[in-house]
Amino acid sequence: MRNLVGDHRWLSLNTATVRKQGSLLEIIEACARHSVRAIDPWRDQVAAVGLDRTAKAVKDAGLELSGYCRGGMLTADTEHRREALDDNRRAIDEAQALGAPCLVLVVGGLPQYSRPGSTPSKDIWDAQREVEDAIASLLDYARQARMPLAIEPLHPMFAADRACVSTTRQALDICDRLDPEKSGAVGVALDVYHVWWDFELREQIKRAGKKRLHAFHVCDWLVPTTDMLNDRGMMGDGVIDIPRIRDAVEAQGFAGYVEVEIFSNRWWERPMDEVIRTCIERLHSVV
Amino acid sequence: MRNLVGDHRWLSLNTATVRKQGSLLEIIEACARHSVRAIDPWRDQVAAVGLDRTAKAVKDAGLELSGYCRGGMLTADTEHRREALDDNRRAIDEAQALGAPCLVLVVGGLPQYSRPGSTPSKDIWDAQREVEDAIASLLDYARQARMPLAIEPLHPMFAADRACVSTTRQALDICDRLDPEKSGAVGVALDVYHVWWDFELREQIKRAGKKRLHAFHVCDWLVPTTDMLNDRGMMGDGVIDIPRIRDAVEAQGFAGYVEVEIFSNRWWERPMDEVIRTCIERLHSVV
Repeated sequence: MRNLVGDHRWLSLNTATVRKQGSLLEIIEACARHSVRAIDPWRDQVAAVGLDRTAKAVKDAGLELSGYCRGGMLTADTEHRREALDDNRRAIDEAQALGAPCLVLVVGGLPQYSRPGSTPSKDIWDAQREVEDAIASLLDYARQARMPLAIEPLHPMFAADRACVSTTRQALDICDRLDPEKSGAVGVALDVYHVWWDFELREQIKRAGKKRLHAFHVCDWLVPTTDMLNDRGMMGDGVIDIPRIRDAVEAQGFAGYVEVEIFSNRWWERPMDEVIRTCIERLHSVV
Repeated sequence: MRNLVGDHRWLSLNTATVRKQGSLLEIIEACARHSVRAIDPWRDQVAAVGLDRTAKAVKDAGLELSGYCRGGMLTADTEHRREALDDNRRAIDEAQALGAPCLVLVVGGLPQYSRPGSTPSKDIWDAQREVEDAIASLLDYARQARMPLAIEPLHPMFAADRACVSTTRQALDICDRLDPEKSGAVGVALDVYHVWWDFELREQIKRAGKKRLHAFHVCDWLVPTTDMLNDRGMMGDGVIDIPRIRDAVEAQGFAGYVEVEIFSNRWWERPMDEVIRTCIERLHSVV
């Protein structure tokens, strides 16, 4: 496992972590100030600044991307299906324009939440099939763009409204069926927040292997968690044994960025520089 | 699948559903008023009334039990381990005295939450091993009392503080190791709230089979869920396809009670009779 003590070369900042404190351009400037070498920007933040301007700012700052957030929301009724696929092809284009190593997929939950206006459904297993079909139909486009798709299993508490792919096993089963030759065209984005509880996490990380480990995200699970969406913890403030999971991921040869992604009403209230400084300190000490 | 339209013979009321509206004796009286034939009482409610008095009230009312809530909280540091096991043996005794068909186990999360005062730990995989060891060491006692143990996989959002057994697969793996002959001495309590999101739920229900399906609990998953512990929905108010899960369970030969267990700040504010009446109506129409 890489030694991160006193070294934040491998830190990437998911820009949602400081989304309330400033624009993407301000976040990019702050990263430069703190020698953070990589970011994972969100589409709405990029759209607010403009794609070309973002690409230029990233290049001028000498930044890399550790991913692009996000494609997905693939579940929809017939009327909204084309919209979902078109939207994902655009996300692939944007990821390519920004030089991202992968497009992170938050695959969508039940169609009425994934693509509002879709006919309501309670069929989670149908939604899961639909996600797989949609990824299958995007895969050629993604391959031509040389843009790996990274399925992010989301915590099961988000199954209804955000992602009906809830475990690493489930994500890898999809990868096996869609990319049996393990080309890496489709893999997983692992976020400790979503998967830390899983009794078979280490086995599944091994099963994924380097070829399918496209991204590694960190934050922490707080007890109690007071808000399901926006009460993630800073690394070290919760109960996740992050080094143990990172060890398993890096044992497979993963040598990419450790991406900090914290959705937190508390941390969004702090100054951007304080948040980034804290991320760096915690990376040294508890990640 | 049994037809429940106009028939609530197979309804059981988990007494936590109306815990704020009255004592266990009052709940038992209400069940008699509404021709509810079974309950699943909680230990603290029984303790408040007294074990003998509860047993008599249950008998006088002609009630059956669909389970006894609950044993578990098996994770502890060395100093608290004996306390955890003693406590569970007492729970087995009480379940036997009340004529329960099984003791539901909420197995515990990290030891500091499961048995307060225990040395804090972040090792969820160690906690999982410990749960298995503890159940193994209780099994003889439970067999002698002819009290089946029902491991309840809890939603992964409770992994830290309530149960580090989070999926049906995980629970059944434990059953396979502890009771390879499938005697039924250890099985599962399935609550749709905890397991509805699982892509492999139906396969795992099949794997469990009648011998290991000890209890079946219903409520619903609300979107949004505003409180992780106490915002469960009344059946029909959320997104769970309950009949589909019940169908899978009954296809294995499960012929026991359909137990309603709703922890809800909203429903705790309604009169007991209204809650029970609503449970009955919903059992007819959406379960």
